[in-house]
Amino acid sequence: MDSDAEFPRDTPSITRWIVKVRDHGASECQDHIAVEEPLEIRLAGMNLSITMRTPGHDEELVAGFLFAEGVISGADDLDVIARYRGPDADPEAGNVVNVLLKKNGHAARERLRRNFVASSSCGLCGKATIDAVRASLPPVRSDIVIPAERFHRLAFAMHEAQSTFERTGGLHAAGLFDADGALIVLREDIGRHNAVDKVIGHMVLRRGVPLDRHILMVSGRVSFEIVQKALQARVPAVAAVSAPSSMAVQMALAADMTLVGFVRPGGFNVYAGGHRLAAKVEEFV
Amino acid sequence: MDSDAEFPRDTPSITRWIVKVRDHGASECQDHIAVEEPLEIRLAGMNLSITMRTPGHDEELVAGFLFAEGVISGADDLDVIARYRGPDADPEAGNVVNVLLKKNGHAARERLRRNFVASSSCGLCGKATIDAVRASLPPVRSDIVIPAERFHRLAFAMHEAQSTFERTGGLHAAGLFDADGALIVLREDIGRHNAVDKVIGHMVLRRGVPLDRHILMVSGRVSFEIVQKALQARVPAVAAVSAPSSMAVQMALAADMTLVGFVRPGGFNVYAGGHRLAAKVEEFV
Repeated sequence: MDSDAEFPRDTPSITRWIVKVRDHGASECQDHIAVEEPLEIRLAGMNLSITMRTPGHDEELVAGFLFAEGVISGADDLDVIARYRGPDADPEAGNVVNVLLKKNGHAARERLRRNFVASSSCGLCGKATIDAVRASLPPVRSDIVIPAERFHRLAFAMHEAQSTFERTGGLHAAGLFDADGALIVLREDIGRHNAVDKVIGHMVLRRGVPLDRHILMVSGRVSFEIVQKALQARVPAVAAVSAPSSMAVQMALAADMTLVGFVRPGGFNVYAGGHRLAAKVEEFV
Repeated sequence: MDSDAEFPRDTPSITRWIVKVRDHGASECQDHIAVEEPLEIRLAGMNLSITMRTPGHDEELVAGFLFAEGVISGADDLDVIARYRGPDADPEAGNVVNVLLKKNGHAARERLRRNFVASSSCGLCGKATIDAVRASLPPVRSDIVIPAERFHRLAFAMHEAQSTFERTGGLHAAGLFDADGALIVLREDIGRHNAVDKVIGHMVLRRGVPLDRHILMVSGRVSFEIVQKALQARVPAVAAVSAPSSMAVQMALAADMTLVGFVRPGGFNVYAGGHRLAAKVEEFV
């Protein structure tokens, strides 16, 4: 399953004529704009999900999404991920992906349905939602130790690798680093969750999960769902350039995950799991 | 329907002890964290949607969501928006809202289902999705003229009104301005779409739609769905502090909506509908 061969569409930005208005006047010029397109995921031909995403690495997005939802536990559960081009085989119409599983697709669909019912019934409060996740996913276990000064280098490495974001100002990025701080894979997407699904999907397809000696870094904020996706992949540490939400912090504490935010030149904030940080950082409950 | 009386929960941020790591060492301190909680919307007792949102102004969020989805066309379609507290009437458990409509709830649910099927069947490409929206919503019509220098003042006014964002770094904001550039309502939320739903829902509940002489401004990027929500409310101009996506630009062009991005000190970019801008800006197709 070579994603480049099977999925040639990788056009994260297009150019377009716009008018730039500045103090000194207005001028027409060409500008880079982040591409947004719908992607429909079908399971054995039936609609499962539609997401607005940046085209490219769609196979990874699908694998990561199915993994995060618990539909697959690894690449071996996948039979086929195939793009559906419609009856006219329009080469431009590549926004539907059909998935066949080796195991019973009906059971997978049932699991998704139960997941939905479970999250419905625990919609009463954030704590109940977190308790429901805890009941199905144990806390992360990892002997990884992260030197405090490493986070700034991660942010720098991610910034260096981010080409499209610089051009369009319109994309989120997620990067996966190994225990030594080396960047393994970076993905950009107009959707924060999609970038994370693509990164984890990349590892799922390469049979690289669980990611229990890895660090996940995101370019913006950290929501509950991003921590939940990291937890499903057993990632022990999540870092972000911006702020976490209250439920992201609560989920990280409950899962014994290290959660670090506002990674900027000169420092960062530790919200959970400070015991994995080496040097200069006190124990943090 | 006084939202403050009926929905007292308005806690956009909490404080929490964190560890700040800086070059010179680490220290414990209190930090503001944006609250994220699930909200379940029920229609006549049946689950319609679950969204992660910032608590507060939930009635507006529900009204704006139902309006954007075409379930209601105004406040007069609403019978009751009531918070459901569960069998134990737990005062903390206010994250379920039940809606009763004056008209047939079954018809509304059918409409939602058809919307879903429609968007499923046009998942093949962005253009088909835009064509589907165009088929149900005509282009905006408005004689509003916006002086080019006004956008910077809008951004400044919104920045002034944004209290929580400054504190937590974790919230999106949406603001609605009248034709003279006066701020009517500003809402912040951890979800970009929720902030827009709350602003439009505020106007729906006050019987202030259509918004055909108004400007909607958002603090971050503009996606297709934000332009779609603005179009549903007949907003002729959308401005953003950051970049639009390709489908946001395509939708704005198709709907003859003015779309302006990167509103920063010193200027902004015009992506669509430049004919509504006065002075110094050439015609833009």
